[in-house]
Amino acid sequence: MHNRALDPRCSRRSPTSHHPPHATPSPVCAGSGPFVAQPHSLVVVSATTALLTDHYELTMLQAALARGTAGRRSVFEVFARRLPGGRRYGVVGGTGRLLDDLESFRFDDDELAFLEHNSVVGGPTLDWLSGYRFTGDVWGYGEGEAYFPNSPLLIVESSFAEAVVLETLVLSVLNFDSAVATAASRMTTAAGDRPCIEMGSRRAHERAAVAAARAAYIAGFTATSNLEAGRSYGVPTRGTSAHSFTLLHDTERDAFTAQVDSLGKGTTLLVDTYDVEEAVRLGVEIAGPELGAVRLDSGDLLPQAKEVRALLDSLGARDTRIVVTSDLDEHAIAALAAAPVDAYGVGTQLVTGAGSPTAGMVYKLVARADDDGTMVSVEKKSEGKISHGGRKYALRRRNARGVAEAEVICVGHEPVDASAEVRSSAEGAEFLAERPLLVPLVRDGEIVGREPLAAARERHERSRAELPRTALKLSRGEPAIPTRWEDRP
Amino acid sequence: MHNRALDPRCSRRSPTSHHPPHATPSPVCAGSGPFVAQPHSLVVVSATTALLTDHYELTMLQAALARGTAGRRSVFEVFARRLPGGRRYGVVGGTGRLLDDLESFRFDDDELAFLEHNSVVGGPTLDWLSGYRFTGDVWGYGEGEAYFPNSPLLIVESSFAEAVVLETLVLSVLNFDSAVATAASRMTTAAGDRPCIEMGSRRAHERAAVAAARAAYIAGFTATSNLEAGRSYGVPTRGTSAHSFTLLHDTERDAFTAQVDSLGKGTTLLVDTYDVEEAVRLGVEIAGPELGAVRLDSGDLLPQAKEVRALLDSLGARDTRIVVTSDLDEHAIAALAAAPVDAYGVGTQLVTGAGSPTAGMVYKLVARADDDGTMVSVEKKSEGKISHGGRKYALRRRNARGVAEAEVICVGHEPVDASAEVRSSAEGAEFLAERPLLVPLVRDGEIVGREPLAAARERHERSRAELPRTALKLSRGEPAIPTRWEDRP
Repeated sequence: MHNRALDPRCSRRSPTSHHPPHATPSPVCAGSGPFVAQPHSLVVVSATTALLTDHYELTMLQAALARGTAGRRSVFEVFARRLPGGRRYGVVGGTGRLLDDLESFRFDDDELAFLEHNSVVGGPTLDWLSGYRFTGDVWGYGEGEAYFPNSPLLIVESSFAEAVVLETLVLSVLNFDSAVATAASRMTTAAGDRPCIEMGSRRAHERAAVAAARAAYIAGFTATSNLEAGRSYGVPTRGTSAHSFTLLHDTERDAFTAQVDSLGKGTTLLVDTYDVEEAVRLGVEIAGPELGAVRLDSGDLLPQAKEVRALLDSLGARDTRIVVTSDLDEHAIAALAAAPVDAYGVGTQLVTGAGSPTAGMVYKLVARADDDGTMVSVEKKSEGKISHGGRKYALRRRNARGVAEAEVICVGHEPVDASAEVRSSAEGAEFLAERPLLVPLVRDGEIVGREPLAAARERHERSRAELPRTALKLSRGEPAIPTRWEDRP
Repeated sequence: MHNRALDPRCSRRSPTSHHPPHATPSPVCAGSGPFVAQPHSLVVVSATTALLTDHYELTMLQAALARGTAGRRSVFEVFARRLPGGRRYGVVGGTGRLLDDLESFRFDDDELAFLEHNSVVGGPTLDWLSGYRFTGDVWGYGEGEAYFPNSPLLIVESSFAEAVVLETLVLSVLNFDSAVATAASRMTTAAGDRPCIEMGSRRAHERAAVAAARAAYIAGFTATSNLEAGRSYGVPTRGTSAHSFTLLHDTERDAFTAQVDSLGKGTTLLVDTYDVEEAVRLGVEIAGPELGAVRLDSGDLLPQAKEVRALLDSLGARDTRIVVTSDLDEHAIAALAAAPVDAYGVGTQLVTGAGSPTAGMVYKLVARADDDGTMVSVEKKSEGKISHGGRKYALRRRNARGVAEAEVICVGHEPVDASAEVRSSAEGAEFLAERPLLVPLVRDGEIVGREPLAAARERHERSRAELPRTALKLSRGEPAIPTRWEDRP
């Protein structure tokens, strides 16, 4: 299927490919997630993702095929010109989903019939699409990795034709998932050791909700309300109850009794349907001090949490936790740091990226072959937008204390590792350590970058931990580390 | 499949159902869209939508089943407490998609195995879910209809059990699609007679992008870049070209020649890769005055459009159109009203709801039966959130000139039509006309509300046209008409 020798399009490809030797492959997914035996095999995906694509990708393909330029070896790069919303860092999300979607990117009879019937493209292009398999290489920042303006987040190297048709899908996945992961990371920072639970499905498109739950988990959320995220990706799922459940019953006592009888004393009771104090007393009366938690979903949460904590303690329910929900964002979470809150349920603000619902990443051609196969760096020249042509390599430079201090981008060739270099500074000699950021995701069309979701979650934790403290500020500001373009031998 | 007599759960249902007799059924979809022979049959959906659901819906179900209250006849209502972002009106989007998703809401072996393996719910609940079919009734505002705070946008009437499990899916679909439709309507208002083309797929989750294209079309957009929206829903698709296409070629002349040769003189050339003036001259040189359009994607669009228009005219290309893109929102579109622009391509701001990426709708239990079958209105009482219990009916009141002047909501019983009433006003006697807003969507579990997408688009156009002029203001403000609660015999 990915045999290059069998694919006539590959004859146009440059024989050279550029695997960064310092980038070790991520562990191949062993098919086991934390909660489901075979999470990847259970991902619910449509038969093909090929039409999740902008019309112009295919008309450009047609024109390039006709002109004889479609086979020119090309390097496309995904990057963001800036971090949205004055954020200090971004978080890469969606890489794993993208690999799944890439595998399903096929033009079958239905897709081709649609394209033909609507005259999107003509016969030769349809023929080309009917055999479409991506046979090139993809490198990318590991999922969960922090990123900065101009970080080369994904590099797609193949013929122009094979790469251009992936633009829309690549950006859709990375822009949405990264927006959510970035917002989620700020929330889990603000929450500190207290768990954050993702509850935003109802405020996002029904499929985007699943991706949001997954992205939030990568960025440190402990669980989600979304069952499909549990099934597809093994994210732990959790639930409390809604006002409707209380209102269904003749009395709050009936409702609480029904819930505790069925779900156990460890359940979480929603206590703000009528009177919070009465409900808390009732809950402890019914479940005893083993009552798992109470949820507050309205009102002024800071004083209310204090009152409820005092009440629970006075009733002997010292281990009963307090869960708060109610349109929380990272600032509201931070403002509750002094409140006796045990867990945060976060919904709307998470799935909408807390004010930045898309990451603003773009997919740009940065290099392509000319007629004799020489790779040429290319970039747009018009006013208002700055691009940097050429194949990129990226390193995160850390100081002797392991704190990140720069995003180093080298153009055109792989940088010599400067880890052993000694730098003179005001404080004396300092060792620099540099960490390569691009890992192989697809090699000769074969997906090599699959990993368990837990690996992305751990990567995020490590990556965030090495950022300077300013990165964790919630206020608007500059990126936590500068992006440096270096030209090394 | 929807035979109530065969379903033991139906024995608990009240025999009375409340079809508003003044709401005529929407035309059943004849299976034909504007561009595809069988759009509905081609919708790419996963096998089941049942796990696009919050964990707590199923645990509430379990507790209610155990308590014996799950079969209580219940009325759930979708409404929004406010319009986001100081908007003057909202636009209902997603109804048609919701009906598709509802039809696919089934718990098959895979779903049940996941729920069992993860101990989400236990045996009796799994048994109940395995036979799940929605057998109740749903009414809703027609898709494309304008709405206001507290408009009863969707009413689901069935057993508690059957309705509660739909909460997450209902809200996901309506919240996202309505947010996009609402933003889109403001954009098409700002654009006036100039066409708006949806190009935001890359800035939204890949499946949400398809829904966004559909919602934008309902709200007056003329086309989308998204091919899946063309295939699934018959939305016309369009494309221009990207900077990568120009950069692929050795010269801009090569690129433009390739594009015009392959796609015809009517194509749209992207002219801002290098120098706009040179590119426009080159485009007209290659395609002649029949050049379809040029696209501007950067720079100061107002003066640039004027310069390009003058240049095109001076070159004899008087019919060549100017398409602008570049992070447009409704305000940017309005600001270009005086520029010689022929079409707007709108991306990021559209798919992210132009600052309001979710509509904030909620799904609340407003009435339910007690033990002897009597329906009881219910509502949450705690501070901070106001709800109104009871089954709602809604009318849009219009004055003698056909201009909407109030959203009239009646609780508990169907209002007598006041269309024939005469009201004394300062200007003399005035005839009131009231238009019922709720149409039947599902009756006894059978979907009756399907309609062609064009019907929703036309409904939106009519609905917006009858709003007072203040509704079309883009500034932040109050809803264009008040919501009035009336108690009529």
